[in-house]
Amino acid sequence: MKIAIVTLDGFNEIDSFVALSILSRVKVDGWSVQITAPEKSVTSMNGVEIKARQKLSFANEADVVLFGSGTHTRNHIDNADLIAQFALDPTRQLIGAQCSGALFLHRLGFLPVTAATDAKTRPLLAATGCLIEDKPLIAQGNIVTAGGCLSSQYLAGWVIARALGLEHALAILEHVAPSGQKSSFVKTAADIIKPQLNVPSQPALYC
Amino acid sequence: MKIAIVTLDGFNEIDSFVALSILSRVKVDGWSVQITAPEKSVTSMNGVEIKARQKLSFANEADVVLFGSGTHTRNHIDNADLIAQFALDPTRQLIGAQCSGALFLHRLGFLPVTAATDAKTRPLLAATGCLIEDKPLIAQGNIVTAGGCLSSQYLAGWVIARALGLEHALAILEHVAPSGQKSSFVKTAADIIKPQLNVPSQPALYC
Repeated sequence: MKIAIVTLDGFNEIDSFVALSILSRVKVDGWSVQITAPEKSVTSMNGVEIKARQKLSFANEADVVLFGSGTHTRNHIDNADLIAQFALDPTRQLIGAQCSGALFLHRLGFLPVTAATDAKTRPLLAATGCLIEDKPLIAQGNIVTAGGCLSSQYLAGWVIARALGLEHALAILEHVAPSGQKSSFVKTAADIIKPQLNVPSQPALYC
Repeated sequence: MKIAIVTLDGFNEIDSFVALSILSRVKVDGWSVQITAPEKSVTSMNGVEIKARQKLSFANEADVVLFGSGTHTRNHIDNADLIAQFALDPTRQLIGAQCSGALFLHRLGFLPVTAATDAKTRPLLAATGCLIEDKPLIAQGNIVTAGGCLSSQYLAGWVIARALGLEHALAILEHVAPSGQKSSFVKTAADIIKPQLNVPSQPALYC
């Protein structure tokens, strides 16, 4: 299972790193979680410069592709050279997006008819005809959207649950949960993730 | 308000980056959040290489110093050259530690008599005579400890609350909360942070 965390200049640290850290707790042969970027290094919205582990083309061969949010998302989706590098396939890949990351789904023609996002991205997505629900996580088929920075924990949990089962996902989420809150955290996570595991895909909203 | 996020090789990405991202949402003159490391670059427990923004000496002049956890913490606290670089002062600074980061508090002579930590660090801290409570966050005076990766959200909230008031902290936490969970998230955060804001300091457990 190759997981590409698409990480571009201006990226939100919570989105990329909470997903990376939780997903990296899976200890299964062949499981690989990689920061994937178009340049050798990228700088976050708060000035953290990181080295990329993989080129953007890794996303096209990965089994899972996650798009986080960031302060430059609208520039990135208008960058035709960048967008042209993606050749994703939602029939074969799990594709997730968080907050403004959903704008990539729209640009790539994969935006589901119902999605979760943050308050800032909501009017932009709503203008496409997409129905935005006030939920942390919404899946349709192999595409999942999440809203609010800290929904990254549910997004990561959903990926693990789809790949290895809900019990595996919840065991890992329990591990990262705050002390003294583990049982309530896991119950909430199960309530959010479980209904999103077997949702049929619907025709995407092409732009 | 200068905030040093002490980030060493093997660091846990959730600890350093959730704190950094939440604390960086404060828009107040002079508020500065910096990844602070002994080398020009450090690599996380899952292989993310980042550039340091500040040298370790920044921690000594900062108003807030946070120690996250990591896979090499026990090596770091046994590194006399590294430990000798810290000259912290809990009468002047807010000092926070998460999970195995509490071992730095012990080594520096600041470990409070009651602390929060994770399951792995618990026996190590308990051996010092420290009382470990199964809570996300415990403060004593200017020192605060947090347990479980995702308690970083409460640790960051506590710092903002101590510096700028609880309302300011809760407004920022509401912003990063998952969609559809914002009111319950903020209520939980308030219940966890508020009782830890005016806790008298007690004599530290010196090693």
